[in-house]
Amino acid sequence: MNYEAFFERAVAALKGENRYRVFADLERVAGRFPHAIRHTPAGPQPVVVWCSNDYLGMGQHPDVIDAMASTARRMGAGAGGTRNISGNHHPVVQLEAELADLHGKQGALVFTSGYVSNLTGIATIARLIPNCLILSDALNHNSMIEGVRNAGCDKAVFRHNDMGHLEELLRAAGPERPKLIVFESVYSMDGDIAPIGQICDLAERYGAMTYIDEVHAVGLYGPRGAGVAERDGEMARIDVIEGTLAKAYGCLGGYIAGKASVVDAVRSHAPGFIFTTTLPPAVAAAALASVRHLKASGAERARHQQQAARTKAALAAAGLPLMETPTHIVPLMVCDAELCKAASDRLLEQHGLYIQPINYPTVPRGAERLRITPTPLHDDALIAELTAALVEVWDHFGLPRAGLAPTALAAE
Amino acid sequence: MNYEAFFERAVAALKGENRYRVFADLERVAGRFPHAIRHTPAGPQPVVVWCSNDYLGMGQHPDVIDAMASTARRMGAGAGGTRNISGNHHPVVQLEAELADLHGKQGALVFTSGYVSNLTGIATIARLIPNCLILSDALNHNSMIEGVRNAGCDKAVFRHNDMGHLEELLRAAGPERPKLIVFESVYSMDGDIAPIGQICDLAERYGAMTYIDEVHAVGLYGPRGAGVAERDGEMARIDVIEGTLAKAYGCLGGYIAGKASVVDAVRSHAPGFIFTTTLPPAVAAAALASVRHLKASGAERARHQQQAARTKAALAAAGLPLMETPTHIVPLMVCDAELCKAASDRLLEQHGLYIQPINYPTVPRGAERLRITPTPLHDDALIAELTAALVEVWDHFGLPRAGLAPTALAAE
Repeated sequence: MNYEAFFERAVAALKGENRYRVFADLERVAGRFPHAIRHTPAGPQPVVVWCSNDYLGMGQHPDVIDAMASTARRMGAGAGGTRNISGNHHPVVQLEAELADLHGKQGALVFTSGYVSNLTGIATIARLIPNCLILSDALNHNSMIEGVRNAGCDKAVFRHNDMGHLEELLRAAGPERPKLIVFESVYSMDGDIAPIGQICDLAERYGAMTYIDEVHAVGLYGPRGAGVAERDGEMARIDVIEGTLAKAYGCLGGYIAGKASVVDAVRSHAPGFIFTTTLPPAVAAAALASVRHLKASGAERARHQQQAARTKAALAAAGLPLMETPTHIVPLMVCDAELCKAASDRLLEQHGLYIQPINYPTVPRGAERLRITPTPLHDDALIAELTAALVEVWDHFGLPRAGLAPTALAAE
Repeated sequence: MNYEAFFERAVAALKGENRYRVFADLERVAGRFPHAIRHTPAGPQPVVVWCSNDYLGMGQHPDVIDAMASTARRMGAGAGGTRNISGNHHPVVQLEAELADLHGKQGALVFTSGYVSNLTGIATIARLIPNCLILSDALNHNSMIEGVRNAGCDKAVFRHNDMGHLEELLRAAGPERPKLIVFESVYSMDGDIAPIGQICDLAERYGAMTYIDEVHAVGLYGPRGAGVAERDGEMARIDVIEGTLAKAYGCLGGYIAGKASVVDAVRSHAPGFIFTTTLPPAVAAAALASVRHLKASGAERARHQQQAARTKAALAAAGLPLMETPTHIVPLMVCDAELCKAASDRLLEQHGLYIQPINYPTVPRGAERLRITPTPLHDDALIAELTAALVEVWDHFGLPRAGLAPTALAAE
């Protein structure tokens, strides 16, 4: 049997739809972010990165780098085992204590990625609740969708941020049925925010447990960087907070924080936690340094919001089709897969600006976009350079100037 | 509703069955492996680790540590994004090329863990093959089981390493049906090996695709450390080889290697690959250094086999209930959850030797054991010390001396 043909066909189909992905071969240079080097067949090209999820540049913060390098020198590279079998190490124990404190919870549990946190966290929590019904926001991230699917229990999807619909589903489930509401604080592709307080109100009224994904918010919002729920004064009302160490904290890994009993039960039952090697000590130490820094320092957050606002203002003033967001995420709509790729290619080749095209399945077809993520390190001169380059590219391809706001399907 | 009660009950059930896990809080000290420090409420305790999956101690090899620390200093901590959105970096691109070369395949794809490689790799491959039937070894690792489940297609489980049963299932499926055989080379809890050549014979005869998990073999077997399939001269016959960077290579991450079309299709379709942040550059660089070193040097492999053989000989001579294995894995049978935990505790408290008890669900109930993993760095004096301590513990608890060999259920 010609198995190769199946795989060739699957790739050809993507190419036919202009959604075949080519990865840019980047080399970050510590201390120079957002400047980086792109490796090309023609040689290295200097670029400015405008689409990183290292939202505050903490991946290049001296304290974070120091923690990573010095811990590697002191303890070695890998953990050498699962958490249970020789792979538990002191930095990850300290990191979990720090994260529990960050969120004001009794405990926290670190996973190898935010993806795995959701996948195995949601599934395990739901499986431990007899006859659980999961209520899931329609725009939840793929990792949450996989977690819900993995749970194997009943689920009901509520329309994105639609409290009327959520209430309807909660009511229909009845007061006796255990219910778990899973949602995000910041939806990463449209950059909008969940009505956390209202969701907590409904959860309390109808006796549901709550699970929030704050991966695009931890480090970035709230007085200590614990996320939007902290900023909004709702953190104590949430049962389980899931976050990542790979975006604003600039490292790798994910976690959940909650009551000691919940954390201990997930620790003891989640296959994606039990059967996998622990994060390296150096990665845990780097994340710990980053969390500690952003707990004490609000300067990066203030500057981040300022530069995001300035970027939005500059693009809007230039008549570019900005999707309005209340967050740091700046989506610029193209609404065509081929043109989106072409615009991105031209930005890179002609202007040395790297903004990856966001196509289906990360956003719905017809909602293709350039997703721009300004950081505190993108200064006003870089914003001006970006604006001019985008105007040139928009003119070159005759791209639409009017703002559109379709909603995202599955954020990457 | 009292949700906490569900979680408390789940944990209480584990405690009642003596399978509640307490993680040892370890601190590895670079250059001193297998010596480490255990943090206890009473203060730090020096221990010798006898259950690490850092099988060759490569996690503390100077070249590997240098690569990790220097890359962190040069490029920063995290990757800053998914592979597609700003997180692709030069060390991971180089690592994939090195792994493809290691296995003599056209391409390789790196994931954040071996767990995720199997979970999303198997599922994606099977989903891309219309009407695929997965034939899965009964003792496959949890990550493979989750991958098979995740594929959502039909599956047939063949008795562990039973070629007659596999052939029966292949024949029953008929020649027209696409088939994928998934199995391991080294089964980590019993330390036995799959008949790779015979599986390839059957795959060719019945037109099946093959997927082998070599996580407990890469780095350890074969002239360049590509695994048991390389050692046995069968590597070119396998379609997809899955491996880890977290065991013999001493770092973190997993991968698949295979034909370019297969790798490209998985790269383009696997949710657990697409929607997650890339391994940090420093981790990829460390893994690259490790793979390169073990490709060229056979000294660690030779010494590893020698010290494993010496450990087995010493324990057997002392009348301890060794399960015979053709590999580096040394299972010592206790066959009782409570006694297994007690033996492990006494080894740690009285002798400063750390060997985690392996209980259900990692092995079946009644097959509880101490799983000992000698490395090249466990010298003859340490082997003698281990043997004496085990004899003391065996005498203390009156543990059985006769060898038993139940088979494992789900390896961690």
